[in-house]
Amino acid sequence: MDTKPYHKSALNVQKGIAQPSVINPHFASRKKKEKSLKPLSWYVDGILSGNITILSQAITLVESNLMAHRTLAQDIIEECMPHSGKSIRIGITGVPGVGKSTFIESFGTYITKNLGKRLAVLAIDPSSQRSKGSILGDKTRMEKLSGDDKAFIRPSPSAGSLGGVAQKTRESIILCEAAGFEIILVETVGVGQSETAVHSMVDFFLLLMLAGAGDELQGIKRGIMEMADTILINKADGENKHKAELARREYANALHLFPPTESGWIPQTQTCSAYTGDGIADVWSIIANYHHEMSSNGFFKQKRNQQSLFVLKDSIEYSLKYHFEQNTETKSLKKDIEKRILNQEISPYKGAEKLLKNYLKNL
Amino acid sequence: MDTKPYHKSALNVQKGIAQPSVINPHFASRKKKEKSLKPLSWYVDGILSGNITILSQAITLVESNLMAHRTLAQDIIEECMPHSGKSIRIGITGVPGVGKSTFIESFGTYITKNLGKRLAVLAIDPSSQRSKGSILGDKTRMEKLSGDDKAFIRPSPSAGSLGGVAQKTRESIILCEAAGFEIILVETVGVGQSETAVHSMVDFFLLLMLAGAGDELQGIKRGIMEMADTILINKADGENKHKAELARREYANALHLFPPTESGWIPQTQTCSAYTGDGIADVWSIIANYHHEMSSNGFFKQKRNQQSLFVLKDSIEYSLKYHFEQNTETKSLKKDIEKRILNQEISPYKGAEKLLKNYLKNL
Repeated sequence: MDTKPYHKSALNVQKGIAQPSVINPHFASRKKKEKSLKPLSWYVDGILSGNITILSQAITLVESNLMAHRTLAQDIIEECMPHSGKSIRIGITGVPGVGKSTFIESFGTYITKNLGKRLAVLAIDPSSQRSKGSILGDKTRMEKLSGDDKAFIRPSPSAGSLGGVAQKTRESIILCEAAGFEIILVETVGVGQSETAVHSMVDFFLLLMLAGAGDELQGIKRGIMEMADTILINKADGENKHKAELARREYANALHLFPPTESGWIPQTQTCSAYTGDGIADVWSIIANYHHEMSSNGFFKQKRNQQSLFVLKDSIEYSLKYHFEQNTETKSLKKDIEKRILNQEISPYKGAEKLLKNYLKNL
Repeated sequence: MDTKPYHKSALNVQKGIAQPSVINPHFASRKKKEKSLKPLSWYVDGILSGNITILSQAITLVESNLMAHRTLAQDIIEECMPHSGKSIRIGITGVPGVGKSTFIESFGTYITKNLGKRLAVLAIDPSSQRSKGSILGDKTRMEKLSGDDKAFIRPSPSAGSLGGVAQKTRESIILCEAAGFEIILVETVGVGQSETAVHSMVDFFLLLMLAGAGDELQGIKRGIMEMADTILINKADGENKHKAELARREYANALHLFPPTESGWIPQTQTCSAYTGDGIADVWSIIANYHHEMSSNGFFKQKRNQQSLFVLKDSIEYSLKYHFEQNTETKSLKKDIEKRILNQEISPYKGAEKLLKNYLKNL
């Protein structure tokens, strides 16, 4: 599974899109696309009744950059908001090769078959482009799960800024929850800043690792280990089983040295084999236990509230910066000031002061 | 030493201020204060000639919130900028009780006496208030060093926002460097966000810890360990020596599990006793080695440049937010929108959109 090339062909990616019938905004004319739009209530009723085809079409609107689509998408989201929030949102990360797809396949099947719960799998990969492929772009990586009628798999939105991609995923989570999905997995590749984005939208954060903490670790950014609610040593099977257990103990010792989390939760370590299924049920036990504890002590709700207010704050700041950066005069002055700062001609504070005066004057 | 109450009386704090002759802006009339100002060249010439009394008075202007003082301070900083940047800036953190003052006393004396270098000790403690005391507020905590004519000790600026306090410390660093100080220590208490601020203004970050990683650790925030360029186990003397060495090995193993830093530097671990002096010279060796390696590979300069551009970016963003938050109409609308977000009536994105429209309309 993990030896496959990470970026898939455009063809495979297209297969991965749940609703190929919704016209791709990049290739169709504006008129044609707007024709395909249905009334608001059609989408909302469809989602609330758990219709996956309609959910997919709504997510396609969320992901679109066309104004008409965005406006309709926002209305759909507002209507779905009161019906959202009831799932457990789980973030999953790990470097390429750690076995994320096989793990999600195995863990996801446990959720749908053993627990009988409905599962949505989303992804965040800001580097993905429709033409280049993306994580989760190829459903054949999760054959069993993609044929499972309790599971809904959605590839990462097409390339864009991390903020943009993260916003689309957040909004998709709302729609999935309104459609009755009880567990949401958000997959991300453990090499960039997308973990922070995922961390700020999930309840529980799972980091997949391999035994032999050598080369494989190089790709994991400092700081990601620390966000983990559980570190999972994957591929604990066959000859690797003992090594995995040793690695688990090492991580457990290392985590022990860390100060407690805000919630009081002590990050767990666990070995598992997505291949044999060993440890998969234990991962669920850990998450269920987390959910129970954090619901009891109020942290679960508190964290969600914090996340919502964080998004508000973040969106405001993003827009303010965007507005500032779009100002043409300020732009060229900024380059000049940066140069002077690096030459130690002015202090960064004086530089900022000059830039702001210029900006406010030109508003 | 460490059993003393952490907040000192106002009296002690006043003693800690290097220049009590400069009138405290909180108690004097505006007119009286402006009278005490000297011309720009008096301050600049004094600083560049290494006059500590004038350096102190200039820092008092930097720390003042009076407009006339701020304006003069900015001019002094601009004139000193070209003469700054030649020191090694070292951040030091650790929870109360870890022995920061005794360590700085011991390490500082090593720098001035054994190395013959001039040392400035600054502090960041946003929680400090003149009336409540502050870290470094009481020079009697560092008796030897405060009598050392190669050392300059300055307490934390009085209470204010972290951003404000950090800015003042950054500016003080520039003045100290222009005055010929070769080593700058910036002390902070390891319990809040101030470490991140310190980390963004120093070249090297030292975390003080104690053996028996139990209760003492509770105060260290997650993420601080990760910023450390060296973890120093203090109080490695007497019966504690063996325990300290065990703790050091544990930390060394834990750090080994972390991926490499951007600079390629491998964080070190070291035991020391500020009391017996054991290991103090080794701490300096580590820092000197770091400075040598990072200067050779270009990271030292690169990090400083990054820090300067970070301050520019940060100041701009801070001012944009400040301007937004000062808008009265926006303020009351924001409260309403936050409430509706927590009630899941609107999404944070829609909320941000509404707020920004309102703000730009009212500009």
